[in-house]
Amino acid sequence: MKLDRLRQSFEELAKFTDEGEGINRLAYTLTERNARDYLMKQLELAGLTVQIDYAGNVIARREGSSPDLPAVATGSHIDSVYAAGEFDGTAGVLISLEVMRSLADEGIKTDHPLEVIIFACEESARFSASTLGSKAMSGRLDPAYTRSLTDKNGITLMQAFEENGLDLEEVHLARRFRDEIKAFVELHVEQGPVLEKQEKSIGVVSAIAAPIRFHVHVGGTADHSGTTPMNYRRDALLGGAEIALAIEKAARAELEHGTVGTVGVFSIEPGAMNIVPGAADLYVDIRGTNRESRQRVADALETAVNDVAKARELNIWMDKTSDEEPVQMDSTIVAELKAICEEKGVAWLEMPSGAGHDSMNMASLCPTGMIFVPSKDGISHNPAEYTSMEQLMEGAEILRAFMLKQAKIL
Amino acid sequence: MKLDRLRQSFEELAKFTDEGEGINRLAYTLTERNARDYLMKQLELAGLTVQIDYAGNVIARREGSSPDLPAVATGSHIDSVYAAGEFDGTAGVLISLEVMRSLADEGIKTDHPLEVIIFACEESARFSASTLGSKAMSGRLDPAYTRSLTDKNGITLMQAFEENGLDLEEVHLARRFRDEIKAFVELHVEQGPVLEKQEKSIGVVSAIAAPIRFHVHVGGTADHSGTTPMNYRRDALLGGAEIALAIEKAARAELEHGTVGTVGVFSIEPGAMNIVPGAADLYVDIRGTNRESRQRVADALETAVNDVAKARELNIWMDKTSDEEPVQMDSTIVAELKAICEEKGVAWLEMPSGAGHDSMNMASLCPTGMIFVPSKDGISHNPAEYTSMEQLMEGAEILRAFMLKQAKIL
Repeated sequence: MKLDRLRQSFEELAKFTDEGEGINRLAYTLTERNARDYLMKQLELAGLTVQIDYAGNVIARREGSSPDLPAVATGSHIDSVYAAGEFDGTAGVLISLEVMRSLADEGIKTDHPLEVIIFACEESARFSASTLGSKAMSGRLDPAYTRSLTDKNGITLMQAFEENGLDLEEVHLARRFRDEIKAFVELHVEQGPVLEKQEKSIGVVSAIAAPIRFHVHVGGTADHSGTTPMNYRRDALLGGAEIALAIEKAARAELEHGTVGTVGVFSIEPGAMNIVPGAADLYVDIRGTNRESRQRVADALETAVNDVAKARELNIWMDKTSDEEPVQMDSTIVAELKAICEEKGVAWLEMPSGAGHDSMNMASLCPTGMIFVPSKDGISHNPAEYTSMEQLMEGAEILRAFMLKQAKIL
Repeated sequence: MKLDRLRQSFEELAKFTDEGEGINRLAYTLTERNARDYLMKQLELAGLTVQIDYAGNVIARREGSSPDLPAVATGSHIDSVYAAGEFDGTAGVLISLEVMRSLADEGIKTDHPLEVIIFACEESARFSASTLGSKAMSGRLDPAYTRSLTDKNGITLMQAFEENGLDLEEVHLARRFRDEIKAFVELHVEQGPVLEKQEKSIGVVSAIAAPIRFHVHVGGTADHSGTTPMNYRRDALLGGAEIALAIEKAARAELEHGTVGTVGVFSIEPGAMNIVPGAADLYVDIRGTNRESRQRVADALETAVNDVAKARELNIWMDKTSDEEPVQMDSTIVAELKAICEEKGVAWLEMPSGAGHDSMNMASLCPTGMIFVPSKDGISHNPAEYTSMEQLMEGAEILRAFMLKQAKIL
């Protein structure tokens, strides 16, 4: 594999962007389509046969000596959020391309077929719905839901499909079956600070975390701040502050399990300099790969709500708005990836993924794993997103070795 | 004095309101002017000579036997906030009218002249500037400042003056002098819960609190909430929460001094479910009548800011946006009002005023005091504002006794 060629791939792909800071290559846009067509051409030049499925996913296939065997697949996405960086999704796709080019260079033949998949619409930036392509491929797409989706310009997903020569009514035909794919491994940038802080080159993902989410409403009394003595107040902000700190404390106690708890939205009413806050609304996101650990943080939230309501005479209610299942990566694949890192002397870390990925859906279809490479300062979804070419090449080495081992070199 | 007549005064005055919930009688509007004209007529019928000064204040005078002696004055305001109640300001004005009517009924003559003053523009609701009339009367109005004032419809204070037959360029002529007024006492609803909670009929105001205000900015890092472990976060919301709780703790320790500390505005950035808050802005209001006590709370805020910044590795700065002087009521008047309550067997409480009033300005002109009557549930600036006629009559008795004692009955 060639670092300079990989660098050039990134430079070429970065040209496909709409106006604005950083990369703007939203799902199902002309710009994304142009980028996709460019990559399809490159994959063909590397000897793959390329097709687009009913959801707009690209499936590029490098035939093996036994075409009836299930494929060993990799891939990621090239659509982006607004003002994105150059690595989220793209890293997995361009490294897959580089792996395929290297196999062509070296004339390597495998027993199982190999596949590179470019998933459509991984980011929720355009339609407020994520991983549509992999949901379709794994048969997890709800038709009624897809018909309701609209972007901020009022363009429906159905219209966007038409612009891409696709028919939303046929998206169910994108579904693939369990015996088609032997293993799927996605390489992705970590989008967090852990590998960098712990000076590791490769993250072997053990599981993908899923959130439990709550809306907590704190009701107090909006009194005049000048005329209401401290002991007669029912200050909703202070109740909310104690709840937010209790969530932090409970999540910190789960550090070994990697569970996190966040109050990302916190708003108060009426929000005036001379009025004691009468209401506070908190939106709480508790994520983890370990269900029990995640539940302990949720329980601590409930305890805090009850304690604070009693101590401060506040009316507090909480509403669970979401409860998704964490997704375990295939244990055989995890073990295989760790063994390859060990063989190659690469510093690795088994870690959860806090963010969602197409692999969440693929795991319901076939044995699935993920390889993380470091993100500088943990920054992602931002033009400052960065992973060095050397770090990307280390990831490429692990991915290539894994695919060849799974697909068996003849 | 007659309770039914006082009740009727409230009913009549409540008719002067613009559309909307509760009372809407904003400063310098036609509606306020109509209410003022109605009251001027009533004061004339009670035997007073009535004039409007250069700021739009009404000065109604009941001549004494020695016209050269300084006047004993009372008064308050009839302008309101949006969606106001019927008692804020109005209570002091209508009780003053009732006192004057009772003196006329009984043919009582005083040595000193008596005055009822209806101050213009006490509320900041229209021009974001409060107590303009009493500022003008006490020579505390900054001409440049008044020229900059505009309401939400773009009408300048200068135009509003013109609509009232006034000239803003002449407002300095509203200034009165120290030897004109022997004593000024304002009766007002408490606008807080203390008298009701402590089952007292009368509050004798010791001092009017003034705020020190701060803007506190907490700077952290806006990371992805799923991919950033708890120990790598710089969560600005949590830092702000600790600061808000530290202010509460410090103010609670000053309960005996009546100092209060409030975070009334608390906003975070970016405020998304899956992003660790990167910034928080707090607006802090610390009020008290005791400068040292108030400063201790401000010092505790500064300590909290430093401690939180260090412990959480946050960048926090604070900016003092306001630092006003508390105003002491005249100690002789305070003693006199307490003595009158004792004589009449009325349950009284010496207490600070947490809200600002025209008396703040009058205190710089002449010996000044305030009488509070209870506010049901401490509610004010709200249609639910309520004080019973019986409670108002108790206040009227104390005010009348004080004025007659000061003005000397012949």
